Amino acid sequence: MNGKIYLIPSEMGEQNPNQLFPDFNKQIIMETNYYIVENARTIRRFIKKVCPEKNISEAILFEIDKHSPASEIETMMKPLFEGHNIGIISEAGMPCIADPGNLVVARAHEKGIRVIPLIGPNSIIMALISSGFNGQSFAFHGYIPIKDERKKMILQMESTAARTGQTQIFMETPYRNQQLFADLISYLRPTTKLCIATDITLKTEEIKTKTISEWKKCIPNLQKRPSIFLIY
Amino acid sequence: MNGKIYLIPSEMGEQNPNQLFPDFNKQIIMETNYYIVENARTIRRFIKKVCPEKNISEAILFEIDKHSPASEIETMMKPLFEGHNIGIISEAGMPCIADPGNLVVARAHEKGIRVIPLIGPNSIIMALISSGFNGQSFAFHGYIPIKDERKKMILQMESTAARTGQTQIFMETPYRNQQLFADLISYLRPTTKLCIATDITLKTEEIKTKTISEWKKCIPNLQKRPSIFLIY
Repeated sequence: MNGKIYLIPSEMGEQNPNQLFPDFNKQIIMETNYYIVENARTIRRFIKKVCPEKNISEAILFEIDKHSPASEIETMMKPLFEGHNIGIISEAGMPCIADPGNLVVARAHEKGIRVIPLIGPNSIIMALISSGFNGQSFAFHGYIPIKDERKKMILQMESTAARTGQTQIFMETPYRNQQLFADLISYLRPTTKLCIATDITLKTEEIKTKTISEWKKCIPNLQKRPSIFLIY
Repeated sequence: MNGKIYLIPSEMGEQNPNQLFPDFNKQIIMETNYYIVENARTIRRFIKKVCPEKNISEAILFEIDKHSPASEIETMMKPLFEGHNIGIISEAGMPCIADPGNLVVARAHEKGIRVIPLIGPNSIIMALISSGFNGQSFAFHGYIPIKDERKKMILQMESTAARTGQTQIFMETPYRNQQLFADLISYLRPTTKLCIATDITLKTEEIKTKTISEWKKCIPNLQKRPSIFLIY
């Protein structure tokens, strides 16, 4: 019988695992010895933290990146066909969103391998439910463009939200957050609502929804702090 | 000092809490005595299950629905201004997505009340990461229209996914899933990929991605089983 793929969430910054994951995740990590990850070093440290009693030297970690060729992915997946389970762990939060784990999952479906998602923190959904915005219709756009396309996209999201009621969600590399905030308050209308969800799951977590005219009166400090931005 | 709002996820069917929630959620439920919920009876049962040692008779549950007037929501939120924390719990999974909890959260932001999301199962994100589809750009459309608008919307989602690479996510009332499946395989192109994620977190969980031409050869049984549909 073929093994299964477990999609295992990780922490988003330094955190107590009891605050982030069900006990079940630890049990799966205890039993799983093959992993597909982006950075073996950080994931070894994560596994040790969640399962201090696990013999980490038995675990085999394959590193993947978005340019990994199909042949390499085939090799990583071999243990599945020898009956071993494989865990996919991302550098932060749920796997297969901002990492190349979905290449493995896509191949798994073609091969009839079962894929089982575990439960853990996801900043997109946590920001959405905390925003007060529409949860029945929303779009996540990933990283916002840096230059020429940026203004057009911000105005497009604003008009889509106003026209259809679809919450618009996006992000930026943390060290450019402050510039993004400046662009948002300069491009968006005063009555448009903006939610900024910063440092989700951390002690410094801050989630605030205000109109653009309110934000102009209280500039937040977002520099180098992972944030999700939502427009409605 | 004002109280805080905790957004507390619930189970999606009968489940062992250790499989679904971090220990921290139990601690918050132990300490919280005011709740805003859709159905007091089911949530009382849920609280008892997660925290058998809690004195449930001390808990005060306010029922909310999407037609609750602003004045009623104000009343429910009064304990916050007396320094008490309030938990918002939905009937299934994360609150404030398919329930009116977001009305309370929107008001909380206006009043400067802190909103803290806890971690738990969310079928949209769990289906997305398990589909193998694009996790950097996706849209959730909620319930798909029943009649005239349905075909148009299905074809629109297919063309958006093909044109922009945005994963399209939607759902249907479980007892109409089988009809939706029939419509999807009749309207979509043979090469379009469809993922169906059924009974997420339950023992009967099944998540499969196939092309429409493959789905035509193996009709799934989705009747009355909660499912998330994804097109790519």
